[in-house]
Amino acid sequence: MSKANKAVVLLSGGLDSTTVLAEAVAGGFEVYALTVLYGQRHAVELAAARRAAAAYGVARHAEVEVNLASFGGSALTGAGIIPKDRTDEAIAAGIPVTYVPARNTVMLSLALAWAEALGTFDIFIGVNCVDYSGYPDCRPQFLRAFETLANLATKAGVEGSKRFAIHTPLLLLNKEEIIRRGLALGVDYGLTHSCYDPDRSGKSCGRCDSCRIRLAAFQRVGIVDPVEYLERP
Amino acid sequence: MSKANKAVVLLSGGLDSTTVLAEAVAGGFEVYALTVLYGQRHAVELAAARRAAAAYGVARHAEVEVNLASFGGSALTGAGIIPKDRTDEAIAAGIPVTYVPARNTVMLSLALAWAEALGTFDIFIGVNCVDYSGYPDCRPQFLRAFETLANLATKAGVEGSKRFAIHTPLLLLNKEEIIRRGLALGVDYGLTHSCYDPDRSGKSCGRCDSCRIRLAAFQRVGIVDPVEYLERP
Repeated sequence: MSKANKAVVLLSGGLDSTTVLAEAVAGGFEVYALTVLYGQRHAVELAAARRAAAAYGVARHAEVEVNLASFGGSALTGAGIIPKDRTDEAIAAGIPVTYVPARNTVMLSLALAWAEALGTFDIFIGVNCVDYSGYPDCRPQFLRAFETLANLATKAGVEGSKRFAIHTPLLLLNKEEIIRRGLALGVDYGLTHSCYDPDRSGKSCGRCDSCRIRLAAFQRVGIVDPVEYLERP
Repeated sequence: MSKANKAVVLLSGGLDSTTVLAEAVAGGFEVYALTVLYGQRHAVELAAARRAAAAYGVARHAEVEVNLASFGGSALTGAGIIPKDRTDEAIAAGIPVTYVPARNTVMLSLALAWAEALGTFDIFIGVNCVDYSGYPDCRPQFLRAFETLANLATKAGVEGSKRFAIHTPLLLLNKEEIIRRGLALGVDYGLTHSCYDPDRSGKSCGRCDSCRIRLAAFQRVGIVDPVEYLERP
């Protein structure tokens, strides 16, 4: 009989969220994986999320569609051009065009809705604010503000003695440290997908910011990234 | 040439949100109305939202689906029984079963996403915390916490000098005062829909909490509620 605590884990199928899934499982949680389909360009990510959810035998994997693309404002959901071959300095400067307005707020809100319905107070998200992030909704102050909000927003937060916790095990790790942590937990990074602009077969481009950051981190770890690339710089 | 400020107005088609729409229009905003289809039981509400959006000639009316019903946890989105014929005291006590986990957090998050994509900082929502509310996500402290979050969560909040504002013109009004305010603004309440459990033709039941609160308020105002009821108590 399982008496494990439940946790909602936001799972995109990327390197970070799959590592977080492994963390939650290692922490003894019964995992409810939530994939938010917000109008990303590619189904490749969803396939990766399904692979990871299956590999870890989650209690349930919910896929919730919410079409942020209809609002516009991001190269990741729209017709904008995904930047390629940028230098480390260019990647590190400013908020990228792949920023999706209020994405993490929307995703955490949905995770909160599910957590409250499940009667659990634990939510995991794979944000980090060290390497190249530039995303405002990956910063510690944003995550603290969401935790405050969660406890004010909900019946569970108001009536109970328990508090919602937004778990961010990767928050202060750089990409190399995340990979090392995941490898220690036995993560198969061949399951994951990070590229912003894969080809039709799902192969990663090797040239967008996400591929460059990932490839450089694997190089520093000293192992070959197991996913397939169209080209490796 | 319109130089009006844009505002995102959350519009359910109910009495409150339609009044808020009228407030935003009266305030000179160019309105972007957002209806969130979160798995409510009835299409009647959506029809009312469309009527209101058309009546006020909004710049755009977006209907975004996000299936909170798949998470469970509410009589309003699930198979639970909608309470009928409750006394004022019973209605006022505790958080009702029609509470939808994290609903306003999800709806405000989506409004924030659209506002940021539009380049505006003004969001209107028709919450109020006076009469019978009991909903944690209608309280002033929740709304202040969301405003704080919005400014931390977004590129617009971080980079610009403007701050997001969550406008809640009904927050401290009771239902009677809301109706009086709306009538002064010329709202046609015949457009709106409030019932939790209408029949197939869209007629209101007259017996759920929402109908009872609405009917009592119209009685206090001293006019007949223009919507059709199956029965009036």
